[in-house]
Amino acid sequence: MTTTSYRPRDGRVAGALADTSAAALAAVVARAAAASDAVAATSPRTRRRWLDALAAALEEHTVELARLADTETALGLDRLTGEVGRMADQLRFYGQVAEEGSWLDVTVDHATPTTPRLVKVNRPLGPVAVFGASNFPFGFGVLGNDTGSALAAGCTVVAKAHPAHVQTCVRLEEIARTALAAAGAPDGTFAMVSGLQAGIDLVRSPAVAAVGFTGSQAGGLALWRAANEREVVIPVYAEMGTVNPVVLAPSGLARLDEIVQGFVGSFTLGAGQFCTKPGLMFAPAGEQVPARVARALADASPAAVMLTEAIADGVASGIRDLVAAGCSVVGRVPGPPTGWAADAAVLSAPLEALAPGSRVLEECFGPVAVVVEYDALDDLGPALAGLQGSLAGAVFTAGDGSVDPAEASLVAQLARKVGRVMVDDWPTGVAFTWAQQHGGPWPSTSNPAATSVGAGALGRFLRPVAYQSVPDPLLPPAVREAVSSDNPWGVPRRIDGRLETA
Amino acid sequence: MTTTSYRPRDGRVAGALADTSAAALAAVVARAAAASDAVAATSPRTRRRWLDALAAALEEHTVELARLADTETALGLDRLTGEVGRMADQLRFYGQVAEEGSWLDVTVDHATPTTPRLVKVNRPLGPVAVFGASNFPFGFGVLGNDTGSALAAGCTVVAKAHPAHVQTCVRLEEIARTALAAAGAPDGTFAMVSGLQAGIDLVRSPAVAAVGFTGSQAGGLALWRAANEREVVIPVYAEMGTVNPVVLAPSGLARLDEIVQGFVGSFTLGAGQFCTKPGLMFAPAGEQVPARVARALADASPAAVMLTEAIADGVASGIRDLVAAGCSVVGRVPGPPTGWAADAAVLSAPLEALAPGSRVLEECFGPVAVVVEYDALDDLGPALAGLQGSLAGAVFTAGDGSVDPAEASLVAQLARKVGRVMVDDWPTGVAFTWAQQHGGPWPSTSNPAATSVGAGALGRFLRPVAYQSVPDPLLPPAVREAVSSDNPWGVPRRIDGRLETA
Repeated sequence: MTTTSYRPRDGRVAGALADTSAAALAAVVARAAAASDAVAATSPRTRRRWLDALAAALEEHTVELARLADTETALGLDRLTGEVGRMADQLRFYGQVAEEGSWLDVTVDHATPTTPRLVKVNRPLGPVAVFGASNFPFGFGVLGNDTGSALAAGCTVVAKAHPAHVQTCVRLEEIARTALAAAGAPDGTFAMVSGLQAGIDLVRSPAVAAVGFTGSQAGGLALWRAANEREVVIPVYAEMGTVNPVVLAPSGLARLDEIVQGFVGSFTLGAGQFCTKPGLMFAPAGEQVPARVARALADASPAAVMLTEAIADGVASGIRDLVAAGCSVVGRVPGPPTGWAADAAVLSAPLEALAPGSRVLEECFGPVAVVVEYDALDDLGPALAGLQGSLAGAVFTAGDGSVDPAEASLVAQLARKVGRVMVDDWPTGVAFTWAQQHGGPWPSTSNPAATSVGAGALGRFLRPVAYQSVPDPLLPPAVREAVSSDNPWGVPRRIDGRLETA
Repeated sequence: MTTTSYRPRDGRVAGALADTSAAALAAVVARAAAASDAVAATSPRTRRRWLDALAAALEEHTVELARLADTETALGLDRLTGEVGRMADQLRFYGQVAEEGSWLDVTVDHATPTTPRLVKVNRPLGPVAVFGASNFPFGFGVLGNDTGSALAAGCTVVAKAHPAHVQTCVRLEEIARTALAAAGAPDGTFAMVSGLQAGIDLVRSPAVAAVGFTGSQAGGLALWRAANEREVVIPVYAEMGTVNPVVLAPSGLARLDEIVQGFVGSFTLGAGQFCTKPGLMFAPAGEQVPARVARALADASPAAVMLTEAIADGVASGIRDLVAAGCSVVGRVPGPPTGWAADAAVLSAPLEALAPGSRVLEECFGPVAVVVEYDALDDLGPALAGLQGSLAGAVFTAGDGSVDPAEASLVAQLARKVGRVMVDDWPTGVAFTWAQQHGGPWPSTSNPAATSVGAGALGRFLRPVAYQSVPDPLLPPAVREAVSSDNPWGVPRRIDGRLETA
């Protein structure tokens, strides 16, 4: 079996990659498992060096990688060039987070007359299976956030090549293999497999300890179910698509044009292929917001080409489903005449269309958004409470830093439903920083406490182990070094309940 | 329907409690949900005050509670009197952890030219369903670790009364209701329901946000499956029984009698009804360790009375199953002639009996242990690698602080399989401290990163929310107070990547 990638602009074949056989998959997983202890035993500083080397190698190939990915994704050279840089910077960031050491959660309780000495440290889980996204071949690809944070945490990684851009994946894997080997990482630290069956078999492999996934609900939940059927169930961290609600508060009407244009820009960015796309806007009635969005969409004329034929078909059927669920198409801009084009569209829906189970509550991946008008802020409460969990949500106000008391509760209402809430900002950008939370309530992610972007991402691939009355020489390096009085790694520690910075 | 508890010493009825009807359950859950925001909005100091008040009220009723529980559990007045004190001290500990504030994980990234201001804080998930254990009516009961850590984290709690000690549960609930109300906690902060159907319906209630469970694998996995079948899947933190392996290293033979007596004391403590009972010992061959354990068991003559008839039956069938799986009974001490007595037993098994899927790898709840003899330390590697995940594991050595190089890897080997590993100490004691980890790889818990005892227990009931470009007045109190420059709550914060203690 072979996986073929295509050129979205004309639908012709771009590249092909042989699927990984069952025997080859077993060998790859065995190498990842065999390297596991060695990788776990390296110091965070060593792993930071690996990640820095990998980042530098990727940046050296920026032009080549961006061109290759543009052929397979049609996301545009500018965007993809920037995304290679983002991928490299993310890897560096996770290396910094690793070295800072808070993620180890080194905790020491000295013995008391009634309790033994207990020393706790977070340990890497072991080989992590990574399933990257179609829409970010670099930032969330085989060397994206999941791989970067798993390596930083001391886990080996087996990534599955994304079928939409196999050539890009192959090149990324080659660069990674060379760079990691040159940096001294053990064979088995990172590997890639390809093919649908290999992906499922990867999740079922007994040696695999955790799964990171970015993509559709159908894909994420399939892996989650497969993991739950294992003899030893393992955590699946699936970050899935959601509707990401935006509330245009009455005070925002003072700058309506600006907000409408920002909305169109955000929901058509990358042809609407963002998991953080704002797909649902609540707007005050009586201001013709749906019609204004339609006009701005026509002005923007996005000419959307989608990543895959299935995604392009999904946009068309998604619009049909939304109409069947009570939405009306207010504006529609046809895609280009060739390739995997999709219409960009804005629809309107009455508040009543948001009943439980409605299609309007679900993501329509692509350059499509729904505007729901409301008469009074009080009407919004039940609608917001009835939303599915989302990655992000936004409130738009006058934008001058003032807080309208009548609108003050909107942030709190959205915060119950999302992992990241913002004011006067669009959700499509996701910074990789210490405070980032990219993950929200079910079904936006399979684990509401996890994030796939930001410093917290390492926590997904760890488990604490407590060492009771264990002599120092028998402690693992991470905690032995930290427990000894000189703390040479300079990691934060909690000693007898008191947190100490390095 | 009514749930009846019995007196284990003679099998007669102890008490009865009407099962909670579907309508009553819905009302209880609705009150817990309605109180959720108010409880979440209180300061950690306020919640510490509630927990302190609850602890004091419980201690005032120590004698009454211990007597009541002894009737329903036969665990003995001394043990139960101590356990009431432990329950109270645990509640105080979780209050201290709440007030210290690290669990909030307050993180602030100021805006940069390329990134917005992001402020992250952990928020309580909402109503938590708590299923306490049969074997610790106080420490892991309706007001045990799960309830204490959930309240400390700012969640409301609905606990299910344990059928084995309904009278004790009713009294605990009465004391808690009175004490929490007097301390100013909102109605709905804590409630209790009863009955098998009410328990399942509780997990299925849309407003319930997480589940804490302590008990058998069958019970824990049933709740885990029910939660996974919900429309909105919620986390189930099930802490289940496991075999808790102990390795007697060759150097430990120098004090064999002491270790053998300690082993018998540990596996018969509380009639072997500890989730941390050491159920499997690996011992050097040629020293007649099984026979020595049998003699020590005969000397100890534990006279085991079990918590319930089903548990007593389970001991008998467990011994039969172990024999069918290749074990031999080496010593057996009959229980008392009346009530729910069980035999205490030690069995021996060859290393080969530990094949994948073997019953010997699973817990036999009660005063039963298996000794497996090994010829050389090298033979142990595959056997240890083949064990199920366990809560705890131990290595016994000469006990003089020396480290035999040949035995040095045993701690690391066990650490791969358990959440807590110890040297020259028994696993049955579980201190509630900052560094405690009471939870291990599947199937010992449903989430290997979680702990049900210790400061980390709060983390099960939280999820992070990031606030992007949100004006300070719109932030929730927990982070608004911490972000303002005076940090009046004195919680640790990470500002632009730098951790600051209070």
